[in-house]
Order: sequence, then structure tokens, then C-alpha cells
Amino acid sequence: MKEEVHVFAPATVANVACGFDILGFALEQPGDEIIMRRTRQCGVVIRKIFGDNGKLSCEAGLNVAGIAASHFLNNVQPGYGVEIELQKGMPIGSGLGSSAASATASLFAANILFDKPLNIMALLPLAMECEKAVCGTAHADNVGPALLGGFTLIRSYEPLDVVAIKTPDDLLCTVIHPHIEVSTEDARKILRKQIALKDAITQWGNVAGLIAGLMKSDYELIGRSLRDVIAEPVRSLLIPRFKEIQTAVLACGALGCSISGSGPSIFALTNDQNIAEEVGRIAQGEFQSAGLRSEVFISGINQNGPVLIEEE
Amino acid sequence: MKEEVHVFAPATVANVACGFDILGFALEQPGDEIIMRRTRQCGVVIRKIFGDNGKLSCEAGLNVAGIAASHFLNNVQPGYGVEIELQKGMPIGSGLGSSAASATASLFAANILFDKPLNIMALLPLAMECEKAVCGTAHADNVGPALLGGFTLIRSYEPLDVVAIKTPDDLLCTVIHPHIEVSTEDARKILRKQIALKDAITQWGNVAGLIAGLMKSDYELIGRSLRDVIAEPVRSLLIPRFKEIQTAVLACGALGCSISGSGPSIFALTNDQNIAEEVGRIAQGEFQSAGLRSEVFISGINQNGPVLIEEE
Repeated sequence: MKEEVHVFAPATVANVACGFDILGFALEQPGDEIIMRRTRQCGVVIRKIFGDNGKLSCEAGLNVAGIAASHFLNNVQPGYGVEIELQKGMPIGSGLGSSAASATASLFAANILFDKPLNIMALLPLAMECEKAVCGTAHADNVGPALLGGFTLIRSYEPLDVVAIKTPDDLLCTVIHPHIEVSTEDARKILRKQIALKDAITQWGNVAGLIAGLMKSDYELIGRSLRDVIAEPVRSLLIPRFKEIQTAVLACGALGCSISGSGPSIFALTNDQNIAEEVGRIAQGEFQSAGLRSEVFISGINQNGPVLIEEE
Repeated sequence: MKEEVHVFAPATVANVACGFDILGFALEQPGDEIIMRRTRQCGVVIRKIFGDNGKLSCEAGLNVAGIAASHFLNNVQPGYGVEIELQKGMPIGSGLGSSAASATASLFAANILFDKPLNIMALLPLAMECEKAVCGTAHADNVGPALLGGFTLIRSYEPLDVVAIKTPDDLLCTVIHPHIEVSTEDARKILRKQIALKDAITQWGNVAGLIAGLMKSDYELIGRSLRDVIAEPVRSLLIPRFKEIQTAVLACGALGCSISGSGPSIFALTNDQNIAEEVGRIAQGEFQSAGLRSEVFISGINQNGPVLIEEE
């Protein structure tokens, strides 16, 4: 049995324009790292947290990495204990699945530390429980792709039905994170509970087109399908310059551009490195002119999910 | 130039459970046949109609095969004339795309008769105009698959975006047509114009699952995805014994079972000939116990669309 493991788990983009509440994909970077060690005492201790600007609690029950490790121990290895060092490599509350990355890293680390009693799919319900503990709902559109890698469809929750969707090799994602806060709760509250059948049909036509485009490596179809007529028109109001950025990003050749998760981060997909970089410059410039600082991440689609970085 | 052509165009199943207004597929049988001949006089004459039990008009402007031929001549070959013999091989008003089959056969025949001035995709807008003339809306979920064959996604109407979806080779469809009438207009009127976001999410999760399942040849995923929470719960009220038939058909091993188009026909998909036949027996028995006669069609997915039967 190992005494210490060091793992990485990726940031994720949920919703993906037309796929509200059912689609997400994993990024190669950014992501969170965790070093986890066995301890003699049972239970979970968080030793250190880096990269969070002091935002996160070191109390194991108040931090999603700690909650995840506790879930794992309670469900799979009762009577054992671990300690955690968490390196946040991504902004918190940015719409990039920060809690999902930490929960995934923690569960993945614990599973390796105890000689893989569970397979990856069996970690998913535990990861969803962590989302419920910190966000209020056991959604899987971040933890699904964070754990499984790639592009993930959550077809159904009852029963849970998660489907891996093949993506073209050279798909690139630019994420721009403006330094404003949008709470997931607020972003969910402003959505209407009733929608027009006409809009729903538009959305499911686009969802079908996106899945077909990804599986056929048809970039034009992917681009035509990356439209959201349900959440984006409302949620984009919470993101300064969203419309200007989207218009300019599409004009410069990106396949599509929408809100990552519930925001405030914006993502764009392309299959061209130059366009991916230009998208970042355009968006950063727009945010700057609104007086906002922002960070840019450019990444391929992460096909692996969490990985072991080094062993003791 | 040919003087006479004889063509076949297939029946189609639109909506396909979760794909309301965006999906359809073509059947190998039944379908309509048309013999079309050039005439010296310009314009369109319908010479004979067989197999319609006297239901259809021989007035070219009142019959969709005549309307289609007129559209073709007006748009592509002005000053020319044709005469038509129409063999209806499928029930009218059954939810199997009867008007789409006749329009498709007529356009396909005229295009061959005049040495293919248009490609198949260019016939689609003309076929949609025919649907508008006879049904009130220029929908493409029957004429799309009737013309292109296979499983067809209508991602968008403005602009028109039609995507062929690969299907597994051994998919079989059983269609059961009960002898009752459901008008497309009534079936459309009873749908609510506003739907719950929750239900819309369920539906687009299933649409995404169905597309992925078809493209992966994953029969279980196809089966899990063939659910309609939007149109079927309302429209099935117009079809006696629908729920009993659906329950029994799924219990006997069909992948999925729902309403074909706006009904009253019911379709089920399977990859097993024995189950396809048993589905027909079950449904016919249920309809019979409700005092209704019905016909059963068992067919593979038609990958060709309309075909030339013989040349002069």
C-alpha cells in the first residue's frame, strides 16, 4: 500500500452552450493538485492549502477536498485516516468547476492510496455528493468530465446515465475568467422555470447537432450548433461586455463562444491555435475596457481526467 | 431525355420519441410509387390514383404529387408538362409521412425526367413548400428523410440545416397503424406552448443520448434515450390503448416505442426480427380488443431515400 500520492484533476466547462445541465468537458489545464498521505489517526486533516488567496477553509468538513476524502473513508475505508495538501491551480467561483476539481482530485487520490477499491465510475456518485454538499445540488456536469475526462453527456440522473462523447483531436478551448463574482445560486435563480416550446426545440436541435458534429469531427456543424437560447440570454446579463466579446470572438473565427458553467468565465472552441490566442486577447481587451482584470487559459480537451503525478 | 420514369419514395417516421420537430427516419416499406411522363401540353395532369380508397383528388392543384410537380416545373422547367400516375402504398393521415412520400416521389421523378437539373439537397426546399401547401407548415422532418434516406436531423430551419445521422445496420422498425383518424392540426393544437425547463432538459438529454447511441451503434443507449416527455404524454391520449401497447412492447424487448409523427401510428425500434414481429402482434391484439383494425409494417431503415424502379 502507498503512503502518499500526488494527483492532478482538471477544470471543466459545463453546459457548453446548448447543453444546459447535460454536457461538460475537461480541460488539460488549469486544475487542482492534491498530495494525500495516510495518517495513524482516523479521519481527515487538511494540512495546507496553496493558491486560494486565503479563501478556503482548512476545516475538513468545510472544504470540498476534505468532504470528499471523508465520504471516501466513510463509504469505503472506515477506520482509516488521511491528510491533505491542496494546491488550487484555478480560480474559485469562476464557472470552471473548482469544487469538482478539488473533489475529484481528493477522491482519485484516496482511491489510489487504498489500492483502488473502486473503479472510476464508482467514484462519480461520491463526487456528486460533494457537489451537493457545497452547491446544494448533486449535479454531474463538472464532476462527470473531471473524473472521466473528455466530453461527457449526463443523459439522465435517475438513474444516473453518463455517456462519453468522442471529440476531434485538435479541438482547443480558450477560457477567459473575468475578476467578478457570480454565485451559482444567483445564476440559477434568474432562469425561468417555464420556457417556450419553440425555444426548447431550437435548443434540442442544437444539442443533437453538437453531438453529431463532435462525433463526426465536423467543425462547421459544431460551430453552427454551439448556440444557447435558454440560459445564455439571461445569464449573460451578469457578465459585463459578454455580447461584445461573443460577437468579436465569433468574427475572428472561433467555432462558438458561450458561458462556462454558470459564469462568469467565458469559453470559446476552435481548432486553430492562433484563433485560440486571439480570442484570449479580444476578451481580455474588452474586459479591460470595462475596468476588469481577467485571466486566460488555452487548453486542449483533456481526455484522461485525473492523473497521478508522482509516487512516493 | 427520358419520356417516362417510375419511382418509389418511402414512408417516414418523424419525431422519433425525444426528437420532436427535429428528427425523422425513412422506412424501406411502405411507400408511394409514381409513374411520370412528359406531355406536349405544359402543366401537370394526374391521370390515375391507385390505393387511396378514393380519398385523394385527381385535381393537380389539390393533390400533393401534382403540387410538387407544378413546383418543380414552375421553378426549374417552365413551359413543360407532365402527367402522373400515383400508386399510394401507404395509409393517408396515418402519421407516416404520406404527403411527404408523394411529394418526394413526384419531385424525384420530375428531376430524373428532365435530366437531373437539381441535386437531391436542392429538392428539399421544394418538398418543404409542398408540406406547407398541404399541412400549413413547411416542416422537413418527413420530407428530409424521405428525400435523403436514413436518419435525418433538422438542426435548424433558418437557415435550413439538415444533418445525416449514421444508424446501425440491423435496426428494425415496426409500425402499427390503427384505423382511426388524428389530424395533424389537432395533434399540434393540444401541445402546450410553454413547457417546464426541467422537462426540456430531460428531453435534450435524451436527444443527445439518442444521437450518440445511433452513431456508436449502442442499442442500450438508444433504448434508454427513446423517451418523450413533451409530446407523447399529451398526444398519446388521442390513441386508444397507447400506454398498454407501449408497456407490453417494451416488456417484450423493443428498444423503444412511441408515436410516429403526430400519430395515430405507433412505432417501435429493435435489432431483432422476432421482437419486431412480436411487437406487431401485441399492438394489433391491443387495438383489436379496443374494436380497432390495424395494419403492421416491419422494415429496416431505408438508407437510400427515393429510387428509380425502371426506365422506359
